[in-house]
Amino acid sequence: MKELIKKIRSSQALSPEAEEYLFSISKKKTFPKGAVLIQQGQNVNKIYFVLEGCLRSYCIDKSGKEHTLQFGIMNWWISDYIAIHNHKSATLTVECLKESTVIEFDAKKLNSIFVPFPEYEPFHRNLLERHVASLHQRILNQLQLTAAERYDLFLEQYPDIEQFTRNYHIASYLGITQESLSRIRVEKNKK
Amino acid sequence: MKELIKKIRSSQALSPEAEEYLFSISKKKTFPKGAVLIQQGQNVNKIYFVLEGCLRSYCIDKSGKEHTLQFGIMNWWISDYIAIHNHKSATLTVECLKESTVIEFDAKKLNSIFVPFPEYEPFHRNLLERHVASLHQRILNQLQLTAAERYDLFLEQYPDIEQFTRNYHIASYLGITQESLSRIRVEKNKK
Repeated sequence: MKELIKKIRSSQALSPEAEEYLFSISKKKTFPKGAVLIQQGQNVNKIYFVLEGCLRSYCIDKSGKEHTLQFGIMNWWISDYIAIHNHKSATLTVECLKESTVIEFDAKKLNSIFVPFPEYEPFHRNLLERHVASLHQRILNQLQLTAAERYDLFLEQYPDIEQFTRNYHIASYLGITQESLSRIRVEKNKK
Repeated sequence: MKELIKKIRSSQALSPEAEEYLFSISKKKTFPKGAVLIQQGQNVNKIYFVLEGCLRSYCIDKSGKEHTLQFGIMNWWISDYIAIHNHKSATLTVECLKESTVIEFDAKKLNSIFVPFPEYEPFHRNLLERHVASLHQRILNQLQLTAAERYDLFLEQYPDIEQFTRNYHIASYLGITQESLSRIRVEKNKK
């Protein structure tokens, strides 16, 4: 939790009361590889800040195929914001791809922090704005880049991730088949 | 501008001073069809709230092909948030697809509103959170739905847009060729 407080403090001052509140609505937890933190179809009442490890959020379509929305590594937030914002059950499953330590927040209490502690607003706003810009960029990349170019960008963004992800995790994030991913890797190794 | 003030007021109280500030940093403008409000490669210092009409944000790739990120219709915000957030020149072009009336904001001044008027934070936070959820959904749709299903969703979201968009506007938003879009339309009309 100290890590997160430090991160928030780097962009703004937090009163001791606000820090105390953050502590009171959160819990540091370590989950083993394979643990499911949010399950598609169920209620969502947690938001996770990743301290260590790697998580993945994905949905399973009608035909049973998985589609990866996000990987959550150190200092990233992960949850199902579609469900939280639209007050519906989870669209996504969030699982640990390796043993992971997170700060688990009660989603409702975290979203209610702003009335007693408006000082938390600028940090949250900055986070959301950065996230919007990166989602815009991802959509543009998906539209305009080749799969090989998207794979290169992916490796830049997550340099060590291939150690603990399976091929279909990455393929389903890039929106390509595992066979295409294999071909891209072969081509890349030839260079 | 009254329309926007009303919209903000529906989610929270605004002081007369905050309203006055919003007026002071904005200007209602009408642009003809084809007008370019933001040009890829140039500086971005405006954010637009759409009162009437339709705008489109897109980028042109190395081969000259256009890729549509967003359509801006009534009550939507449009700008180049990648450029604004990363302090770089425009990745996108924003143009009017028909005569459009917007409220034009000075981006820096709008982003500085929160210090003197923190009451503006909840409205902005809600907007960003809704936008994040819809971008997550769009990425998942792009990964898991067929082009025909994405086209159906597009028509639900923008029911009247085909009156003033060209085929390549829609195809480049859906990430498909114009030929695919034509085939989907033919199939749809058969049903």
